[in-house]
Amino acid sequence: MNILLVARCKDRLASCAAELQDKYGVQTRTCLVDLQTAGPQDWARIEAAMQGLQIGILLNNAGAFYEHPDYLETLGQEWIQEHLWINCLAPTMLCKMVLPRMKARGKGLIVNIGSGIASAMPEAPLLSVYGAAKTYVDSLSRSLDAEAAPYGVRVQNMWPMFVYTKIAKLDKVSFFGPLPDVWAAAAMWQLGRDTCITPLWVHGLALSALRLMPETGKQVMKKVLYESREKALAKQNGATAVSTAKAAAPAGVQVSAVSGGTAAASARHRK
Amino acid sequence: MNILLVARCKDRLASCAAELQDKYGVQTRTCLVDLQTAGPQDWARIEAAMQGLQIGILLNNAGAFYEHPDYLETLGQEWIQEHLWINCLAPTMLCKMVLPRMKARGKGLIVNIGSGIASAMPEAPLLSVYGAAKTYVDSLSRSLDAEAAPYGVRVQNMWPMFVYTKIAKLDKVSFFGPLPDVWAAAAMWQLGRDTCITPLWVHGLALSALRLMPETGKQVMKKVLYESREKALAKQNGATAVSTAKAAAPAGVQVSAVSGGTAAASARHRK
Repeated sequence: MNILLVARCKDRLASCAAELQDKYGVQTRTCLVDLQTAGPQDWARIEAAMQGLQIGILLNNAGAFYEHPDYLETLGQEWIQEHLWINCLAPTMLCKMVLPRMKARGKGLIVNIGSGIASAMPEAPLLSVYGAAKTYVDSLSRSLDAEAAPYGVRVQNMWPMFVYTKIAKLDKVSFFGPLPDVWAAAAMWQLGRDTCITPLWVHGLALSALRLMPETGKQVMKKVLYESREKALAKQNGATAVSTAKAAAPAGVQVSAVSGGTAAASARHRK
Repeated sequence: MNILLVARCKDRLASCAAELQDKYGVQTRTCLVDLQTAGPQDWARIEAAMQGLQIGILLNNAGAFYEHPDYLETLGQEWIQEHLWINCLAPTMLCKMVLPRMKARGKGLIVNIGSGIASAMPEAPLLSVYGAAKTYVDSLSRSLDAEAAPYGVRVQNMWPMFVYTKIAKLDKVSFFGPLPDVWAAAAMWQLGRDTCITPLWVHGLALSALRLMPETGKQVMKKVLYESREKALAKQNGATAVSTAKAAAPAGVQVSAVSGGTAAASARHRK
């Protein structure tokens, strides 16, 4: 048994497991849980699925993003709660589950998926809950790495920026918005290195530019976010978008897993 | 009607309301809600309590802290969930409720209570969930201030550090750990000023020192946290604490309110 996949979509879980088996000869175990709403019974089921396994790597890849950037007051109560659940509570709970096992063995790695937005922008207007949640993941990862490192266990937070995923809604693959495979390959190289890291060098370049010119960067990002909102609303209303800007919301990788596995967790965010 | 108090403890809510009325002639309305577990009906009750009121200031003062610093794996599942609920979800929901009203009037102020720990330490070992939650509040406040400022509404995040409150468990009042009144008076002076602010000058001094010497500061804070944990565990076990260090956990003000009001929200954090 090589990978335990945890996700909420039965069909995608099965097809992912089959692909891993057929294409790479990798044995998997699956655990069907919706991390947006998981309760005590679900955590217990994940714990049970871990029984007898030596977890080497936990990849907290589950996450949710906005349908499009928008003001806090437009978000539904349920959406906000589920957003906090999957982006904050779920990684916390999964770390809590695996840390004692890893510490007992004196080795292990946890990889949390953050977002460049938590690092690139001190503020994220129209993405307030997402930005805050990813900042939570960033802080949690740093604290846990400090707690676990003396036991030989590492906790990392990897920051993607633009990646051409379904959830990021990029118009096309680009230099700064590559295919997920490209990002994942870069991430593999950085496993176990810095606590907080932007694995892809082009994203590192973008981050450096934003840090060198924080005010300019802030204005550019704000422009992108507000125009993205306008374009999305115009599209929803059936009108032609007046804005000529490319709608490009910073990417949150949209895959949910313990050590891999996929489950889209998007939701219409408006009430 | 001057203040709407939201808290979970009926007796303390009543005594707080009575004190405000008797001592300061301030009229209050109360709303009994446990923000650690609030659901849709509770949010609806708070919304209903706001009916007919022009909310000038929202003070998101509710919060929870650790009983003592400890490793993530020692925290109970329920405790973690309630911690996220009161420290992250509740302020988000309350901001969501009042922002449209304030924007419509073209004025208003939201004050969130963060923590110096989110600013002073990039990592907070043994306080991982608290540190992450307060970083969430910091990011949320910055984003919302950027969203709301064009409408004449401000969102602030105030960082206390050590304050002599029940939850902070300081041994005594000190220069760096003053009485809550002293902190509150300083906070009043800073209403509506910087987005993120450490109102008390002695705390500002401590923060500056930590920023000037980040590595030294980190080591000192770590020492305080680990010794605080040892001391607390020794006390729990009935043994005499061997450590001679003062147990001093960074303070999270432990009062829950919309525009004031009190409700302790402590909980034994161990399973």
